[in-house]
Amino acid sequence: MSKEHFLEQHDPERKDFQIDRIILFSDAVFAIAITLLVIEIKAPEILKGFTPDQILEQLYELVPKFWGFFLSFLVIALNWRSHHRTFGFVNHYTNRLILLNFFFLFTLVLMPFSSAYYSENTRYNVPYYFYNINIILTGITNYALIKYVFNPKNGIVEHQPTIIFKKLFMARTIAIPIIFLFGILIWPLSRMYAQMSPILIW
Amino acid sequence: MSKEHFLEQHDPERKDFQIDRIILFSDAVFAIAITLLVIEIKAPEILKGFTPDQILEQLYELVPKFWGFFLSFLVIALNWRSHHRTFGFVNHYTNRLILLNFFFLFTLVLMPFSSAYYSENTRYNVPYYFYNINIILTGITNYALIKYVFNPKNGIVEHQPTIIFKKLFMARTIAIPIIFLFGILIWPLSRMYAQMSPILIW
Amino acid sequence: MSKEHFLEQHDPERKDFQIDRIILFSDAVFAIAITLLVIEIKAPEILKGFTPDQILEQLYELVPKFWGFFLSFLVIALNWRSHHRTFGFVNHYTNRLILLNFFFLFTLVLMPFSSAYYSENTRYNVPYYFYNINIILTGITNYALIKYVFNPKNGIVEHQPTIIFKKLFMARTIAIPIIFLFGILIWPLSRMYAQMSPILIW
Amino acid sequence: MSKEHFLEQHDPERKDFQIDRIILFSDAVFAIAITLLVIEIKAPEILKGFTPDQILEQLYELVPKFWGFFLSFLVIALNWRSHHRTFGFVNHYTNRLILLNFFFLFTLVLMPFSSAYYSENTRYNVPYYFYNINIILTGITNYALIKYVFNPKNGIVEHQPTIIFKKLFMARTIAIPIIFLFGILIWPLSRMYAQMSPILIW
Repeated sequence: MSKEHFLEQHDPERKDFQIDRIILFSDAVFAIAITLLVIEIKAPEILKGFTPDQILEQLYELVPKFWGFFLSFLVIALNWRSHHRTFGFVNHYTNRLILLNFFFLFTLVLMPFSSAYYSENTRYNVPYYFYNINIILTGITNYALIKYVFNPKNGIVEHQPTIIFKKLFMARTIAIPIIFLFGILIWPLSRMYAQMSPILIW
Repeated sequence: MSKEHFLEQHDPERKDFQIDRIILFSDAVFAIAITLLVIEIKAPEILKGFTPDQILEQLYELVPKFWGFFLSFLVIALNWRSHHRTFGFVNHYTNRLILLNFFFLFTLVLMPFSSAYYSENTRYNVPYYFYNINIILTGITNYALIKYVFNPKNGIVEHQPTIIFKKLFMARTIAIPIIFLFGILIWPLSRMYAQMSPILIW
Repeated sequence: MSKEHFLEQHDPERKDFQIDRIILFSDAVFAIAITLLVIEIKAPEILKGFTPDQILEQLYELVPKFWGFFLSFLVIALNWRSHHRTFGFVNHYTNRLILLNFFFLFTLVLMPFSSAYYSENTRYNVPYYFYNINIILTGITNYALIKYVFNPKNGIVEHQPTIIFKKLFMARTIAIPIIFLFGILIWPLSRMYAQMSPILIW
Repeated sequence: MSKEHFLEQHDPERKDFQIDRIILFSDAVFAIAITLLVIEIKAPEILKGFTPDQILEQLYELVPKFWGFFLSFLVIALNWRSHHRTFGFVNHYTNRLILLNFFFLFTLVLMPFSSAYYSENTRYNVPYYFYNINIILTGITNYALIKYVFNPKNGIVEHQPTIIFKKLFMARTIAIPIIFLFGILIWPLSRMYAQMSPILIW
């Protein structure tokens, strides 16, 4: 209990800002992770004497990387929207909330690596599994965070939303990891369908 | 409708901050995109025995990269100013606003790649077209965002500006993609004039 | 004294925001340092004809890098939590506070380098010492910052916490550098125990 | 005038946040520029069979890079403190303020490049001049920004500080570029003294 008591001693005028700070720090991590994705796509160098066809060929070879970039952008954007929605209800914070938030951020920070590993090696099993597991972990840690926030016992939220919306929100949150788990499962049957499975997000 | 209802359940005290958060997250993306531009310019290594002329020659070879860097900095800065102006009117938000904002951010995040691709290969058609198309997409997504924000039906803005200023603002927004489209069109006639065309922005 | 007088002339309405700005600038540095950690882990390229075993072998070789990444993430996260806690009490600021905060940020900004140096060369003394010294400096500068903030003479905090919690907090702060100093000391005896020592943080 | 009129139509409740946003966007650029500095220092790879002496030799060779890193960190930190001080007085903004701020940010964004170029080639004239000119431009654009802010005609500041402090502040601001200009001038006489000249900042 002592840690929470410590928090309670904070200057009451600054309490709201302490919550804002958790959120804005998370946003900076989101923003950097989403922007670093593109760093992994190296701009091709055109050599002297290249024909227009060869130049287009170079770009064409980047298509899997662009696909990976687009997919990872989508995943991070969806996670941001979810985080934005969750923290719109947060009036109080605890050490545990900060800890769960860091677990979630850890999986986000890994995304540029997983995304690069997958999109550079799209034809292989291991990178595809690695990437999907990263996204699944993102979904699970996000789910744990949301569950903690909306649990009335934890005293995080003052104005609880209706139960129906809470359930809807949590179902949506768990949908992303399920889709990517589904991708892993159908991969041995059909690589193409597996890679297309994220379209189900919409 | 259910999604918007969900938003309405948010703690009313935190509603303003939810809008601030959309803005500050966007700003972090702007800031990272504008700062990553310079990463693509590798500092030249001076080898033993280089004469001052050779050292200056090395720098001189970077001029196209600096030009690309400067141009991209200008484009992102103009987009930031436009975003700053638009969101000075935003009192409410919707899922659609977040979605349109992400479309816009997606084109910004691509800028460091396009900028590097263009500025490393300034003599070729494809990179020039690629770069200009990226900027045109930035303008179009920004235009869609602005149109959505100022449409009274969407309930985003409480204090609508006068119609004359709205028109002026939207005309300015669409000017950037038109200038870069113009660059694409005159490129086959004169590369020099095409590359100079962004000067028309002022 | 003149510098502090200068600060006192600031617009009173903006005074709170001046403190917020110190905090949010620090948070941006935290966020970038924690996200750059992963950049040092290059995604392995799978060559044609690699067997699944060879692909897993490539990943397995990254384990020390992932360990270093995880450890550095933990260290920066703990430092962020400590900074978050400290600045929840800050009502006023001085030039000295800004200076001490920059000393602390300097050690954080070095972390991606130290982390990469250590995790690429885990079997050698020098990188391990370098990394641990970086973390020890982080702890010392953080300790200096906290000591300055809670010293009533400096007029930073209006609502001082109880002495018992102040002592507990400062003891916890100094624990991280002591654990890593301990790691340096037992390294000549047992490398494995030394590398495991951060587990004591919990 | 029409542009400023446009700004005046902004929602009055959001006006303060519009100023905050200029500041926080600038802070994100500061934070990224200061953190990217370390990226240019590549962690040395220790090869099999290296003696401790060879490992220390590798680190020793990085000393000029660390010096450049430290110097650039100091310069960006001083510029941040100056910007923090200036914007503590800002109650209103204009298009011109945003423009001058972008000029200043442009010189900051260039710092990681200049810093890398200088610190990788510390024995040569051109990189040293390039680096110092970058810092001088940072000082000049900062000076122009400060002059604009405190000019009562521009209506930026409601609570003007005393004239004596304004003069002191502007003198301090111009001191950094003068010191680095001084470095350029004495370089042909003594490289060592030139490189030491930043110590005068204190």
